[in-house]
Amino acid sequence: MQHGAFEDVRIEGHLIDSGIVSQVMDHIIAFGGEFEMLSFDVGRTNTDVSVAVLRVSAENQDHLDGILSDIQSHGAYTVDASDADMAPAPMDGVFPDAFYSTTNMETDVRLAGSWVRVANPEMDLGVRVDVESGTAEAIPMADVRAGDLYVVAHDGIRVHPQERPRDKQAFEFMSSAVSSEKPKAQVVADVAKMLRDTRAAGKDVIAVVGPAVVHTGAAGELARLVKMGYITVMFGGNAVATHDIESALYGTSLGVGLEDGVPRLGGHEHHLRAINVVRRCGSITAAVEQGVVTKGLMYTLVEAGVPYVLAGSIRDDGPLPDVITDVIEAQNAMRVHAQTAGACLMLSTMLHSIATGNMLPASTTTVCVDINPAVVTKLADRGSWQTVGIVTDVGLFLEQLANELEK
Amino acid sequence: MQHGAFEDVRIEGHLIDSGIVSQVMDHIIAFGGEFEMLSFDVGRTNTDVSVAVLRVSAENQDHLDGILSDIQSHGAYTVDASDADMAPAPMDGVFPDAFYSTTNMETDVRLAGSWVRVANPEMDLGVRVDVESGTAEAIPMADVRAGDLYVVAHDGIRVHPQERPRDKQAFEFMSSAVSSEKPKAQVVADVAKMLRDTRAAGKDVIAVVGPAVVHTGAAGELARLVKMGYITVMFGGNAVATHDIESALYGTSLGVGLEDGVPRLGGHEHHLRAINVVRRCGSITAAVEQGVVTKGLMYTLVEAGVPYVLAGSIRDDGPLPDVITDVIEAQNAMRVHAQTAGACLMLSTMLHSIATGNMLPASTTTVCVDINPAVVTKLADRGSWQTVGIVTDVGLFLEQLANELEK
Amino acid sequence: MQHGAFEDVRIEGHLIDSGIVSQVMDHIIAFGGEFEMLSFDVGRTNTDVSVAVLRVSAENQDHLDGILSDIQSHGAYTVDASDADMAPAPMDGVFPDAFYSTTNMETDVRLAGSWVRVANPEMDLGVRVDVESGTAEAIPMADVRAGDLYVVAHDGIRVHPQERPRDKQAFEFMSSAVSSEKPKAQVVADVAKMLRDTRAAGKDVIAVVGPAVVHTGAAGELARLVKMGYITVMFGGNAVATHDIESALYGTSLGVGLEDGVPRLGGHEHHLRAINVVRRCGSITAAVEQGVVTKGLMYTLVEAGVPYVLAGSIRDDGPLPDVITDVIEAQNAMRVHAQTAGACLMLSTMLHSIATGNMLPASTTTVCVDINPAVVTKLADRGSWQTVGIVTDVGLFLEQLANELEK
Amino acid sequence: MQHGAFEDVRIEGHLIDSGIVSQVMDHIIAFGGEFEMLSFDVGRTNTDVSVAVLRVSAENQDHLDGILSDIQSHGAYTVDASDADMAPAPMDGVFPDAFYSTTNMETDVRLAGSWVRVANPEMDLGVRVDVESGTAEAIPMADVRAGDLYVVAHDGIRVHPQERPRDKQAFEFMSSAVSSEKPKAQVVADVAKMLRDTRAAGKDVIAVVGPAVVHTGAAGELARLVKMGYITVMFGGNAVATHDIESALYGTSLGVGLEDGVPRLGGHEHHLRAINVVRRCGSITAAVEQGVVTKGLMYTLVEAGVPYVLAGSIRDDGPLPDVITDVIEAQNAMRVHAQTAGACLMLSTMLHSIATGNMLPASTTTVCVDINPAVVTKLADRGSWQTVGIVTDVGLFLEQLANELEK
Repeated sequence: MQHGAFEDVRIEGHLIDSGIVSQVMDHIIAFGGEFEMLSFDVGRTNTDVSVAVLRVSAENQDHLDGILSDIQSHGAYTVDASDADMAPAPMDGVFPDAFYSTTNMETDVRLAGSWVRVANPEMDLGVRVDVESGTAEAIPMADVRAGDLYVVAHDGIRVHPQERPRDKQAFEFMSSAVSSEKPKAQVVADVAKMLRDTRAAGKDVIAVVGPAVVHTGAAGELARLVKMGYITVMFGGNAVATHDIESALYGTSLGVGLEDGVPRLGGHEHHLRAINVVRRCGSITAAVEQGVVTKGLMYTLVEAGVPYVLAGSIRDDGPLPDVITDVIEAQNAMRVHAQTAGACLMLSTMLHSIATGNMLPASTTTVCVDINPAVVTKLADRGSWQTVGIVTDVGLFLEQLANELEK
Repeated sequence: MQHGAFEDVRIEGHLIDSGIVSQVMDHIIAFGGEFEMLSFDVGRTNTDVSVAVLRVSAENQDHLDGILSDIQSHGAYTVDASDADMAPAPMDGVFPDAFYSTTNMETDVRLAGSWVRVANPEMDLGVRVDVESGTAEAIPMADVRAGDLYVVAHDGIRVHPQERPRDKQAFEFMSSAVSSEKPKAQVVADVAKMLRDTRAAGKDVIAVVGPAVVHTGAAGELARLVKMGYITVMFGGNAVATHDIESALYGTSLGVGLEDGVPRLGGHEHHLRAINVVRRCGSITAAVEQGVVTKGLMYTLVEAGVPYVLAGSIRDDGPLPDVITDVIEAQNAMRVHAQTAGACLMLSTMLHSIATGNMLPASTTTVCVDINPAVVTKLADRGSWQTVGIVTDVGLFLEQLANELEK
Repeated sequence: MQHGAFEDVRIEGHLIDSGIVSQVMDHIIAFGGEFEMLSFDVGRTNTDVSVAVLRVSAENQDHLDGILSDIQSHGAYTVDASDADMAPAPMDGVFPDAFYSTTNMETDVRLAGSWVRVANPEMDLGVRVDVESGTAEAIPMADVRAGDLYVVAHDGIRVHPQERPRDKQAFEFMSSAVSSEKPKAQVVADVAKMLRDTRAAGKDVIAVVGPAVVHTGAAGELARLVKMGYITVMFGGNAVATHDIESALYGTSLGVGLEDGVPRLGGHEHHLRAINVVRRCGSITAAVEQGVVTKGLMYTLVEAGVPYVLAGSIRDDGPLPDVITDVIEAQNAMRVHAQTAGACLMLSTMLHSIATGNMLPASTTTVCVDINPAVVTKLADRGSWQTVGIVTDVGLFLEQLANELEK
Repeated sequence: MQHGAFEDVRIEGHLIDSGIVSQVMDHIIAFGGEFEMLSFDVGRTNTDVSVAVLRVSAENQDHLDGILSDIQSHGAYTVDASDADMAPAPMDGVFPDAFYSTTNMETDVRLAGSWVRVANPEMDLGVRVDVESGTAEAIPMADVRAGDLYVVAHDGIRVHPQERPRDKQAFEFMSSAVSSEKPKAQVVADVAKMLRDTRAAGKDVIAVVGPAVVHTGAAGELARLVKMGYITVMFGGNAVATHDIESALYGTSLGVGLEDGVPRLGGHEHHLRAINVVRRCGSITAAVEQGVVTKGLMYTLVEAGVPYVLAGSIRDDGPLPDVITDVIEAQNAMRVHAQTAGACLMLSTMLHSIATGNMLPASTTTVCVDINPAVVTKLADRGSWQTVGIVTDVGLFLEQLANELEK
């Protein structure tokens, strides 16, 4: 290979046991570049930090820029850092060409010679810079306003990859693989401890909830977690709220009696009648206040003052008046909570869980529970040590989790 | 059991080999009623129609009404038919209490002594009656206007259950079970024949398309079907259109090269950049007209004048300017096509397929293709002989289907 | 169609609500025959028995014989019954040509003008006749001895299809569909009641057990069921016994600590060391008697005197000395118990469950528990009302089942 | 931590980009040890080899031995190597206590001061030493003879971990993840190239085949690969051979016509009749020679002289006379081929694929094809760069693979 261009990059941290240097080297090779290790100060013990400096070579400047941009997201930044480049948004809702697309990790941009932390880290956004205040923030495409300045290209950007802690952590034994074949008692205890720690730290816990939680008769167990204060925000869709209110009004979910599992006469219409009733009341809160809905998960959320976001989908019947039918509005409503949460439980819903996962910073502890290993794999595969997948029956799991937390 | 109430009901059709009488009897017993067979004129040969009259007994009138309402949806109607009851909608978006909730089967309501066919049969809607014109139509809850008359309770309603044809049909061997273990050549030939027949009859074919069609490199095969005229409407979401346009602009889907399967430098950002480009153009059609998008599935749809509906979901990035972000609006846009289509191919998307399935009359031939048997089972389980599930690789399937249709 | 041949057949039972007549008619049509309904005495109420007589027509005698043979397994038998035909087995292990292949339903053969019940009904065997004693028995192919007489062709055979009871039964709500989305508390209560009833009737309960039961930490829950007397036979393979003994010796399953879920040093070798230890003792019973194995599921079985069959498979390490490495011998060891059991719990093992299912009479109540819906569907799809599939986490399920039975 | 014991270990190879050092460090920490990096000579370019020397500390000698034993399987060996310890087998079929349990990677043992390569590397065996000849071989537990010498403990053992090649390889883009969403044309081309290379190198290719290959109508495609010389050994069970012969004799698989997908009269008995026919002939080869079986996969294997091993399982009907019903004998028959094969295609069978995978050296290129992602994940998860999982329809895949190889 002719080396038309090279650049020296620096990486620091627990490089070896976090596998970070391996990843950076892998990517350089995979994309046709080469590297030379200029220096590698290895931490002698397992608490020291290592520092590596690599010289990355490529065929030409374009090729080099591509590689540097790629390994940047794994923590490599150029030794000779320059300021970030910026360009104005050409019109509302459109980033400038060559806009920098964010990861969900902590990120700095260099403005006037100083590294500035980007607020609200979230995947696949742009970085808006306020030159006067010297601040930077991640912004969704739909919220772009013409003329605002956005970071472009790859100079002056530093990403802090999520590091694996050297000592054992709560979820270590689970994070290695997603499997239904794990001792469940320990899994439950670990999740319980994590919830206690998160709430003790004063952070929110989001539950993302699918209708299977109601169908399996587990909505009551989730309501126990709400009452105990372990769930402080709820995300879901029309289905979970509808079937929960159906169960409050008629004792059924999808028309099947939750006490005895026997289908009810006319039961297949219950969900539609429940929606109709709440639409007449005006909202779920109104239905609770008017004494129409007197129990269940949604009732408990209203009574406990726990906020919820119900996002619409094209498969919705009705929907309930509280459902936000515009999906971009719904995202913005979820984003408010996602940015600050300390933990997130994803319970038997792929659509809402993926949507939530897209908004969470990499540092948010996330637990995905589903009986379908494919769903868990997809959700847990975010490349962060904070994400744990549990393949189990969500109904039985929530019951045991609530029991454990009540001890 | 004390019999406080009874009513005679009539069922006719190919009762025995369609299993219709079995279903009606099952439901009466399951819900605690009893029956006496008053008469049963069995068709002596396999072309004759049978007529059964049953006396249904229940504990009281309420119980009886519940049972009659239930077996009505399986084709049993009271011998002494009265006119359907009606009530006005109390407010916009709210049905009257006790509104009749529709099935997706052909339905008649009795108005002024005559049976009137309900237009636009679709599941889980209400039946709006125009007394002056003597017509009836199925209406979604969100479209209800205060004061309009809707059918309530269960009198004067006759449902025509989807009958299984006595002679063998194209899909008979497949409809019995969903399995990946079927000879695939025959399955492909059957679907090809069905598409030819549907188009020869001048009916639309809807393709409901998920992003896996693009990721597996099969968008080109689907485009061939569009060009040959076998797909006349396309439903999808932001993802399938984005990744198709990504492939047109950058040769990748989700950043992976479609020719060689190798990830591209910066490829994970391609989908976002593709969206940004189209947003700047104003629409997909504009991007095609401006020569920005010059190939791919979406390009082919625009060039062929084939309409498409892109429905938003909360997991969307961007989204593309053509995406209808309000889900109720998106449903209405889909509904226009769903009511008149002759066939529907559901290709690797659960969300959009379920949404579409909810809108299709029971008589629409529907083929669900997915590599995940759970998805196929869920979609194929609509209780109609017109629905076929195929567990296979959608990429390889579309290629063989296009080859078969080109013969 | 030219009708070269016809025959009158009779069917009796709860024909309509069991769907039996529908099935028979379906099959006649599907295989190209035709029928005329000669008489149909419908039970007027839901406790009366119906009797149908059909004239079946076919192209020629061969075609007719094929159709009669087919509908025979659904309960239709010729009005003019003749004696069953017999032929001698040509050599050891080989049935005579045209041997009658059994279903798993109660079956009669006509010998010297009398209907004789076939002993040990099981799928896919032959029917050996002892002319002197006038008895008949189902025999596996491998056990055939040259010269013994076997039923051939289809004359003189009457199958009693498994009828669905008209009144509600314990598992009715579950049998309609396999789903993970059922209220679990009721499912557990139903299975508990079934186990109590079976044991009260003095019948055996077989547990077919896969290694996931040990990995999920549920072996202790299953041992509780053994101690309480609800499991009286155990079927499994080398893996479940090995990992259970591994847990008794080292506290791990597959090397992972069952108390804390943490992998142990050298843990991946534990299963092989456990096998080596038991091989040195001579057998599992010897290992228990020598005080080497002092707890766990296998220990509990030995102590309780509950018999077990461990069948070999080609993926086995070792194996344990108790494993029957010849699969035909293993089948015969299982068959002894399968013929007389009143119920069977299939717990997270497809191979052993299918093998067991092949041996069970259709009347044996069978419950399949697995987290994978595809496994449950495959196992539950035996066409009998006695088979129930439950998609759930086997570990959590067994714990709740044991708790329910201890109440 | 008190450090009662320490030892210096050496690792060499492409340590960083293979992630080997990361793994060793991870394991030391995970199991409660500590390490100090004594030296780390990093290869400056991506072709140089690195050498690391670590001082491993533990609480006491036992703890240290456990850790050393663990990291040994990742390539770390003590700087001061001593000879391997040995002990005699106490009885037939039983290893000495503390026997060394093998990995599937290339392994050396130190005998009389020299490193000797262990013959036939395979997982979970013992290492038998012949002191006179100075040789060592991996031996299954069942083949142990009393008095033979086996390696015990962990001294004097060196494992060569499978290294990832630095340059791109055929399967790189696939090995990162198992997904059904890959461009299939490229996957097919890659597998075709691998088969060509393996055969060009004069190495065997094993096909491990499940019955779905026959049910999907793909047995003919596999037979094409046999005829072209790309499959040189076949492993399977009773089912695949039975259904293939059923298709040769009756044109059906599981009773369903392979040409038209329509169930045949009496078809559910075909598989049993096929077995009976072959049992009467004496063997599959005899059935071919007698002109009874004249086409199909098994016929092609016999005609081409390609060896096959049919291993018994407890779910077998019959079985065919060629089936090895003793599973330990069957393993030994498979082992002969597994040790020398250059590649292995695992086609829609979990049981036989896992059994085969257990016997393959880590260096054998292995491709797993199944429509069920859980099966592929389980099989592909062997920790070697040589294993590739493909989630697709095996029928359509084999057709395209045969077409590609015929080009």
